[in-house]
Amino acid sequence: MRGSTVAEPVFRRLTLLGIGLIGSSVARIARQRGDIATEIVVNARTRTTLDRVVELGFADRVELDPAAAVEGADCVMLCAPVGAFAGLAEKIAPHLKPGAVLTDVGSTKQSVIRDVGPLVPEGVHFVPAHPIAGTEHSGPDAGFVELFQGRWTLLTPPPGTDDTAVEKVAELWRRCGSQIARMSPQHHDRVLAIVSHLPHLIAFTICGTADDLADETRQEVVNFAASGFRDFTRIAASDPVMWRDIFLNNREALLEMLARFTEDAQAMARAVRWGDAAYIEDKVERGRKIRRSLIERKQA
Amino acid sequence: MRGSTVAEPVFRRLTLLGIGLIGSSVARIARQRGDIATEIVVNARTRTTLDRVVELGFADRVELDPAAAVEGADCVMLCAPVGAFAGLAEKIAPHLKPGAVLTDVGSTKQSVIRDVGPLVPEGVHFVPAHPIAGTEHSGPDAGFVELFQGRWTLLTPPPGTDDTAVEKVAELWRRCGSQIARMSPQHHDRVLAIVSHLPHLIAFTICGTADDLADETRQEVVNFAASGFRDFTRIAASDPVMWRDIFLNNREALLEMLARFTEDAQAMARAVRWGDAAYIEDKVERGRKIRRSLIERKQA
Repeated sequence: MRGSTVAEPVFRRLTLLGIGLIGSSVARIARQRGDIATEIVVNARTRTTLDRVVELGFADRVELDPAAAVEGADCVMLCAPVGAFAGLAEKIAPHLKPGAVLTDVGSTKQSVIRDVGPLVPEGVHFVPAHPIAGTEHSGPDAGFVELFQGRWTLLTPPPGTDDTAVEKVAELWRRCGSQIARMSPQHHDRVLAIVSHLPHLIAFTICGTADDLADETRQEVVNFAASGFRDFTRIAASDPVMWRDIFLNNREALLEMLARFTEDAQAMARAVRWGDAAYIEDKVERGRKIRRSLIERKQA
Repeated sequence: MRGSTVAEPVFRRLTLLGIGLIGSSVARIARQRGDIATEIVVNARTRTTLDRVVELGFADRVELDPAAAVEGADCVMLCAPVGAFAGLAEKIAPHLKPGAVLTDVGSTKQSVIRDVGPLVPEGVHFVPAHPIAGTEHSGPDAGFVELFQGRWTLLTPPPGTDDTAVEKVAELWRRCGSQIARMSPQHHDRVLAIVSHLPHLIAFTICGTADDLADETRQEVVNFAASGFRDFTRIAASDPVMWRDIFLNNREALLEMLARFTEDAQAMARAVRWGDAAYIEDKVERGRKIRRSLIERKQA
């Protein structure tokens, strides 16, 4: 336990279930600021990860048993891949303190509400959240205190969620450097499908397409990647289990966005085949315009 | 005219037709090193661009007329979008000096050989080349001397091309910091289709797909781009005319790679729809492997 610094801490005991890029960034920020939680408890699936967490020094306590980790916590944050949430929720539900806030950082929100919602005990406040930030790195070493600076955290609390609980989660993320937006889980999943899940699906796919080419060409793909391919591979280097879970848990929105994209790509193919220069130029111009909007909003 | 420094300059008069990112980088390097050419002549389509070139100070002389620009040059480098090559070649052909080397920096090589090859006068050596380097910026201000450092330049001279001419072009690119590989134009166009042209087509397309979404979602695409989308938009900010020309001039290989990619994306969609977790994980793992190869080869 460490004392508060300037402001009153948002929570007393904060338990992180899972300690990858996001969880370990939150822990590092909480440790550095002192006004997010007075005590940080970390749970992970393996003893090896927990040993590393102890070495890294951003937890007050580590626990291999999720049930033990959440005992007495006034905030529990699910930071594992979204496919593991249902199993974790089942294990921790009987051990959550009345009045505790249960939140998460998952990249899909309808699935989290579907999987975790029914298991939340009476008197525990469930506030689904998603900090939109990331790199291609994973694990407890990957986190850093600047990760959420100037980024957004989306909150998708079901109707009737306790306002104080929502505000506490919002305040936690504001102190992590994030801006806050509130929206429905349906809307969240559609937006994320186009800005994140589809780009990742495409990036993984094109790496496979390149890898299937004849041996000689494959070598050259690596040698000549500076010409565009490498921008796709950066995001393709992300954690396989996390992304598998995201795809499977945002299926409908992802398939819809992929279908739209495929139609557009086929239209572009047709323009290339028939030499429709004006069509191609127009599409390229739109890419530029979107890029300019990003730069103006400092997200690029 | 400036004197040579250490080594003998590769060429006496080097004429650059077009002065965007690639041309202006070559000019800057030639200016700085002094051992690439003793005189740099620059031609561009507009007086405005040439005025800017004069201000930037990397040319010994500027010429609005391509025919005048190539007079007496022992190396002429086509640095315009590939769609402009045929027109330029027609204008300059009667004015090329016997024994001169004609080369280019175009991203498609079969089309360049098809368009320019037949116009090259007897006694002029045509050495098609493609430096694989770039940023999303364009114009004479975009160039910089480090652009080609550690990158590759691909040479695709037709059988029977004069060896001395090929070696001179290779030496020019080596002095620009580039490594050299020689291959057939067919092979070049296939490799570039997968490492560069398809990624760009995808990036332009997904920007359009996002832009077609409902107004509210479009705004959020910009706000939440940090989650993957922005990596796609960086390359989508490239020059529209250049890319239109590349797509139209590498049609067959580009359409083949897009067809392969689309099949693979559909297979991924099917795995998502039917919940085939192992398939998805395997594809994501392949992305990671390719990424690791890139890092080992320092192209990332």
